[in-house]
Amino acid sequence: MKTNIRISVDAMGGDNGPEIVVHGAFLAFKQCKNVEYLFHGKEEVLKPLLDKYSALKPISKIIHCEKIISMDEKPSQALRKGRGSSSMWSCLQAVKDGDADVAVSGGNTGALMAMATFCLRPMKGISRPAIAAIWPSIRADIVVLDVGATVGGDAKQLVDFAILGSALARALFDQDAPKVGLLNVGVEEVKGLEPVKEASRILSQAKDAGFSYYGFVEGDDIGKGTVDVVVTEGFTGNIALKTAEGTARQVGTYLKNALQADFISKLGAFIAQRGLRAFKAKMDPRAGNGGVFLGLNGIVIKSHGGTDEIGFKSALCLAHEMAKDELLEKIGEGMENFPTSLIQSSKTKDSPSE
Amino acid sequence: MKTNIRISVDAMGGDNGPEIVVHGAFLAFKQCKNVEYLFHGKEEVLKPLLDKYSALKPISKIIHCEKIISMDEKPSQALRKGRGSSSMWSCLQAVKDGDADVAVSGGNTGALMAMATFCLRPMKGISRPAIAAIWPSIRADIVVLDVGATVGGDAKQLVDFAILGSALARALFDQDAPKVGLLNVGVEEVKGLEPVKEASRILSQAKDAGFSYYGFVEGDDIGKGTVDVVVTEGFTGNIALKTAEGTARQVGTYLKNALQADFISKLGAFIAQRGLRAFKAKMDPRAGNGGVFLGLNGIVIKSHGGTDEIGFKSALCLAHEMAKDELLEKIGEGMENFPTSLIQSSKTKDSPSE
Repeated sequence: MKTNIRISVDAMGGDNGPEIVVHGAFLAFKQCKNVEYLFHGKEEVLKPLLDKYSALKPISKIIHCEKIISMDEKPSQALRKGRGSSSMWSCLQAVKDGDADVAVSGGNTGALMAMATFCLRPMKGISRPAIAAIWPSIRADIVVLDVGATVGGDAKQLVDFAILGSALARALFDQDAPKVGLLNVGVEEVKGLEPVKEASRILSQAKDAGFSYYGFVEGDDIGKGTVDVVVTEGFTGNIALKTAEGTARQVGTYLKNALQADFISKLGAFIAQRGLRAFKAKMDPRAGNGGVFLGLNGIVIKSHGGTDEIGFKSALCLAHEMAKDELLEKIGEGMENFPTSLIQSSKTKDSPSE
Repeated sequence: MKTNIRISVDAMGGDNGPEIVVHGAFLAFKQCKNVEYLFHGKEEVLKPLLDKYSALKPISKIIHCEKIISMDEKPSQALRKGRGSSSMWSCLQAVKDGDADVAVSGGNTGALMAMATFCLRPMKGISRPAIAAIWPSIRADIVVLDVGATVGGDAKQLVDFAILGSALARALFDQDAPKVGLLNVGVEEVKGLEPVKEASRILSQAKDAGFSYYGFVEGDDIGKGTVDVVVTEGFTGNIALKTAEGTARQVGTYLKNALQADFISKLGAFIAQRGLRAFKAKMDPRAGNGGVFLGLNGIVIKSHGGTDEIGFKSALCLAHEMAKDELLEKIGEGMENFPTSLIQSSKTKDSPSE
């Protein structure tokens, strides 16, 4: 287990600027300890901020970068413009060069994924990277992937995601063999499900690969926590994630309205404020902020662009945990232990490679 | 507007048997009035139930059917076994023969869709039917389709769904031109999104087709109610629906636990019980029970299999409303007014037809 974790931070990414990034880094330092920061961005902006959070000064270094990737830039544009010289690229390069253990950015997701793939390259045997979400469930936190890196995907990719996601679960939750489920619809006899069914056939034959395959799960199994790792392709995964976020907000609004409808309900809510505060804390999306890019030769954490210092702190603490628990090594083991013959013998061996 | 609505009911469908079906029919009769029932199922079971809810007797007729389609039967099996002689088929046949205005079943979704497609046939110009959900949002109820009839789907199918869904919104919400959004992921520059992008190009050119095209929406726009109709293919739609259901239950559990954590919170919750009851009613999935099969020559409502009499009543009331507001005619108008040249000139004209 690593002790001092070097986090490379894209200080210019996100909607709310470097102030919340450095403030978040300060909060994460207080919480996680044993951390060093490399801040990538405009020195003239970052220096005064480090003066403000002076506890960070001895453990921080600023890497000056002129260019900033904007939140609405297309991935291909960002790659052309920002390669080499942007704070986002520089943040990733530090991981590639071994100067940092993990990279964190709140910048534009598409651009970050494109740059990370280009800079760090997919791991051997992985055709496409994935973004994993740490998803709260009634039972415990679980891993859901892919939540937006790829669209579509064949059986081989879904199997890759199972390997990647279970390694993440092993690193995060300290489990030996996390339960993996494949997201599916209830009605099985539908055309077009072939990749999902084929992936299921492969996974059910894999033994001692660092996970136990549970079978198909449906959308409501995510919130129930039926399995530790839910595998799906990125279009569906992204929509499931955002739908859940929207539903949680919607239910919160209903509750607020109901408790403000009349004086007695308001009074009751006032009295129950301790319980309601605990509920609110549980529902706070900032507590679980951070998507994990998996399948690259380096760990990258994507923070929500619109978050504040509390949310950014969560992303940094997640990065800290990932690096400390040696996620990459765990993924490597998972890939080594997976019987590759299963994939090669599958019908989808002609899947697009990198 | 029709006044007396004849509802054809598969009395043997669902997990909880004919008792909840007939009880639900009794409740729906009290609520909706102007209704007649055709109950399809075993006469020896249904007769005593009608004796029990004797107010139903003058407005009900029993069509005896020997066979029952079980909840775990595969669609193809069900079709082979139940064609002609099962309560599910008989329920649909009554709509086909003009003996009823709408069919309702709580049976196995896949079997019901297969039988409905076979019995009622897709409408002219529609390649595949869809299942639409009436989804509560913060703003108002909205329509989301497809939530599980098809998997995958090309641009033409997504355009069909926009036509079908907007007709449903016009019938249900009394809107002239409901806003239609296409469900998409945030990152646009991803391969594999071609059908969604192509559908968007077609829809943005359609004028006076009974809806106004809003553009892309994301998962969290569903709960917000950004548009009146959300269009997607059935795999993603089904998973979004179930994920939302799971999230709502999960949030409800968090709230319950938080309000039972200590005495003071319990006391507050007791005092706020009126507000909390209103909240609970708002969250009750039985209130919005019923998926609408669209794109067939007849209206079919699918009730949740596991619901009780309250939920089945909701499905029957939804059926009543659909038939009363002449949904089929509205769909017909929508199809007539849609500039077919847009679809024919699209790249996807070679889409699989029925």
